[in-house]
Amino acid sequence: MHEFQLIKKYFSKLSQYNSSSLNLNDDVFFDKANKLVVSVDTYIQGVHFINFKKPNLVIKKILRSSISDLICKGVVPKYYFIAGSGNKETFSPTNLKKISKSLKEEQKKYNISLCGGDTVFSDKLSFSITSIGFSHRIVKRNNAKLNDDIYVTGNLGDSFAGLKILKKIITTNRYFKDFFEKKYYLPNLHLKLTKKLLSFANTSIDLSDGLISDLEKLINKQKLSYKLYLESVPISKNLKKLIALKKMNKISFISKGDDYQILFTARPTKSRIIEKTSKSLGINISKIGKICSSSLKSQVIDKKGKKIAIKSKGYYHNF
Amino acid sequence: MHEFQLIKKYFSKLSQYNSSSLNLNDDVFFDKANKLVVSVDTYIQGVHFINFKKPNLVIKKILRSSISDLICKGVVPKYYFIAGSGNKETFSPTNLKKISKSLKEEQKKYNISLCGGDTVFSDKLSFSITSIGFSHRIVKRNNAKLNDDIYVTGNLGDSFAGLKILKKIITTNRYFKDFFEKKYYLPNLHLKLTKKLLSFANTSIDLSDGLISDLEKLINKQKLSYKLYLESVPISKNLKKLIALKKMNKISFISKGDDYQILFTARPTKSRIIEKTSKSLGINISKIGKICSSSLKSQVIDKKGKKIAIKSKGYYHNF
Repeated sequence: MHEFQLIKKYFSKLSQYNSSSLNLNDDVFFDKANKLVVSVDTYIQGVHFINFKKPNLVIKKILRSSISDLICKGVVPKYYFIAGSGNKETFSPTNLKKISKSLKEEQKKYNISLCGGDTVFSDKLSFSITSIGFSHRIVKRNNAKLNDDIYVTGNLGDSFAGLKILKKIITTNRYFKDFFEKKYYLPNLHLKLTKKLLSFANTSIDLSDGLISDLEKLINKQKLSYKLYLESVPISKNLKKLIALKKMNKISFISKGDDYQILFTARPTKSRIIEKTSKSLGINISKIGKICSSSLKSQVIDKKGKKIAIKSKGYYHNF
Repeated sequence: MHEFQLIKKYFSKLSQYNSSSLNLNDDVFFDKANKLVVSVDTYIQGVHFINFKKPNLVIKKILRSSISDLICKGVVPKYYFIAGSGNKETFSPTNLKKISKSLKEEQKKYNISLCGGDTVFSDKLSFSITSIGFSHRIVKRNNAKLNDDIYVTGNLGDSFAGLKILKKIITTNRYFKDFFEKKYYLPNLHLKLTKKLLSFANTSIDLSDGLISDLEKLINKQKLSYKLYLESVPISKNLKKLIALKKMNKISFISKGDDYQILFTARPTKSRIIEKTSKSLGINISKIGKICSSSLKSQVIDKKGKKIAIKSKGYYHNF
């Protein structure tokens, strides 16, 4: 059973005691009366990050993953808390110094501050991060409308290529190695876009599990389907080259996770303002598909107009 | 190096970017402008709870431990988030059902609601709980005044006796076993006292690590000392009997952790109102000592007026 199905089955009823909150179907908690938005996530070595050889990069990756949950909902992150469990080596003075330096850099970059947390001893390394922001309004999950355009920011797949290189499944030259590994560790979040999202996005999610599975999550309680145009899904020049070089498929990269780009839907009438925003902020925003009626089956279309079968819908935290 | 020393050394500077917050020396984060109070804690099997044979009780214990951080500061808890990591057995449908039932009972008892969280796979069982409340004001750490009286709610040591029985270090009869194990798993929090604390407490902390070590934490940045009267430290009739039966020392029980009673200091002029509050709420509040000048050494005094040497100051999460 998938993580969100598990949670849904046993715990979603518990959250309904409080009528002002969104239910557990969403990635963030929103208390409208107190303007409070909260995201809580756990990151485990071997699941959410490959290893702890580069604590400075790992800590940036997971912190960005956490605040990304707020940013994609139109909420500026303000505070964060880290609870870390690990052994003496993970929390050695050298590593703590590196972690502290990284956090300082991220605080400056994203204008956030550490407000608490704790460290406990465990032979398994994990972190739990709580991120908090304040907003009158958020972009909700499960609020797509029929005929909405589907958009995505930035490029997809670079992070997954980085992971494959780190895992030595793909071998490549120094330049590609540096480029993709950086994309894996340091996803580029679009803080500037945050507040703008509220003015045009009907619904949004950040791509952590993968394009297809996150898109399905985005509309999972709605009687809707989607049509995605593979050709329109943006990838970097470097990934294009790598895919050609290694004779791989674009689909296998873009449907994997860890991109932390923003996937959102908007009314077709919003097309102009989205284009303008994209240009003025210097952030690529690509129209990649359409929200359709539930009478159609969801599909991914290749450049010849043919339907593509998706083998792996992305990454789930399976139990 | 102790947990809070570690945190202090590497991370306390990071939190000073934000002037409205307390620094990491406190157990809770307080954003006065947004009236937000947050506590984040991690609970690890073998460290914070003995095992997971009774998921229904463990989950209550750790949730109470988390909201206790707010309650002892004069803040009514409102929301909580749980991030759990464990294996298939820990999150089996049977256990999830038990956890869910326990949470439901706690929500009713303490008027709180689950607002999110996640579950991830790990061979080491741990939970991270974020508790949130709203308040204009909180009772601060490190705000004791010279000549303040030191008070504590309820009885101390029952929980530690429960742990010793669970660990089979103490063997006893069925009645004692039930009584003390219940005290270990289900600390009695004084939600009714919460708001009243703001009117008389200068500083406060909940007893999680143990009376002596928590008292030292409470005044650790101040040039103050304390005098504790062992005879005045309240213990239950059952613990009195157990101690006599097993020929043990009172001090070894009351200086251990997991009591989740509230330790606070107050001006001597508040004595009457504290007595009245104690009576009207039906909550035992005992005067157990005095805040003294730093020119004196902190001391624990027995009934004959003799100084007692403390071997173990309580429980630290050592690295």
